[in-house]
Amino acid sequence: MKIGIIGAGDVGGTLGKIWRQRNHEVMFGVRNLQSQNVQTLAQMDKSLRFGDINEAVAFGDVILFAIPWTSVEETVHRSGNLSGKIVIDPTNPLTPDLKQLALKDTSVAERIADLAKGAKVVKAFNTIGAKTLNNLIFGSERADLFICGDDTLSKRVVGELATDIGFDVVDVGSLANARMLENLALLWIELALRQQLGPNIAFKLLRRKAEF
Amino acid sequence: MKIGIIGAGDVGGTLGKIWRQRNHEVMFGVRNLQSQNVQTLAQMDKSLRFGDINEAVAFGDVILFAIPWTSVEETVHRSGNLSGKIVIDPTNPLTPDLKQLALKDTSVAERIADLAKGAKVVKAFNTIGAKTLNNLIFGSERADLFICGDDTLSKRVVGELATDIGFDVVDVGSLANARMLENLALLWIELALRQQLGPNIAFKLLRRKAEF
Repeated sequence: MKIGIIGAGDVGGTLGKIWRQRNHEVMFGVRNLQSQNVQTLAQMDKSLRFGDINEAVAFGDVILFAIPWTSVEETVHRSGNLSGKIVIDPTNPLTPDLKQLALKDTSVAERIADLAKGAKVVKAFNTIGAKTLNNLIFGSERADLFICGDDTLSKRVVGELATDIGFDVVDVGSLANARMLENLALLWIELALRQQLGPNIAFKLLRRKAEF
Repeated sequence: MKIGIIGAGDVGGTLGKIWRQRNHEVMFGVRNLQSQNVQTLAQMDKSLRFGDINEAVAFGDVILFAIPWTSVEETVHRSGNLSGKIVIDPTNPLTPDLKQLALKDTSVAERIADLAKGAKVVKAFNTIGAKTLNNLIFGSERADLFICGDDTLSKRVVGELATDIGFDVVDVGSLANARMLENLALLWIELALRQQLGPNIAFKLLRRKAEF
């Protein structure tokens, strides 16, 4: 898979490194090729590619917008043609105190879908901390990735990218449910930061064969 | 523990039966002692007690309001003195299509706390289906009960009542976080009903010793 990652911060950098280790082709699209994050990533893995945002969008079949949610709309707007691409939104529209969602009746994912005509938007990778992505095994259990989106095939592709890095996948239905996943992220943040459980936590949906 | 359960529907009936089996004293407070739910419960366990709402409130050290969220405020209002009692709110303020929360900037639990002066309100038992409460074991894992409230001792008591019936407990902090748990219930409902996973599902917070 060819993956364009917009942003080279914690989430984008971590996912890009791991996907490259799993033999996907990865190009980071950034505003500043001289930034410390870019230098560090380039030193860690010589096979990672770097370009500007438009180059990374043109490169990828899958595009991950791993940038602050407040920059997403402007960045999508000037990203070039996203039509036909699978666009992953891992952001959370948090208020500055990290206690609430700043968008009241919609989600970042739905806003991206409104802007990027023809793109197949999938909400994913937003309900867990960036560092936790490095190890998704908890004893005998794998952390769950909760994803949603309107295109079934795109969700399957993102699901495989998630399985590649250690997740089990829970399909939460259509993109209209992205707000549920943004709320789940709020709970993760509350537990990790305020309740001081730290980043070594992840949600799992327990299941068993039907009893009822 | 003496537990007053307001309502004899699925959630109240199930919890009351199990707590009685664990040797707690249980009185149901209902409007109609002749209802089918009450008759069925009374036949299943002769040691369950029944009374009107005021009697159940006077009886219990812990009071569970297991009634539709639209009736909670009126019922709390005419429940007599709840001061000093531990009040458990297991409700979810769902819109009729079960897709959204009907309260925009608060939670049922916070509304109960506003009305019932001196009561120690704990949000609990709202993030899982009533039937699922009968068996909280999923392979080698126990389902988690996510609870929040402002009084630490009350949360410990509710946590013990939850452990009694098979849950592990995750403390989500103050009652101001009740809305996070109501949103978690939305996700459970979406997965169980719309995504057709059925009621044999439960959330678990995976944890491990610190790596980071």
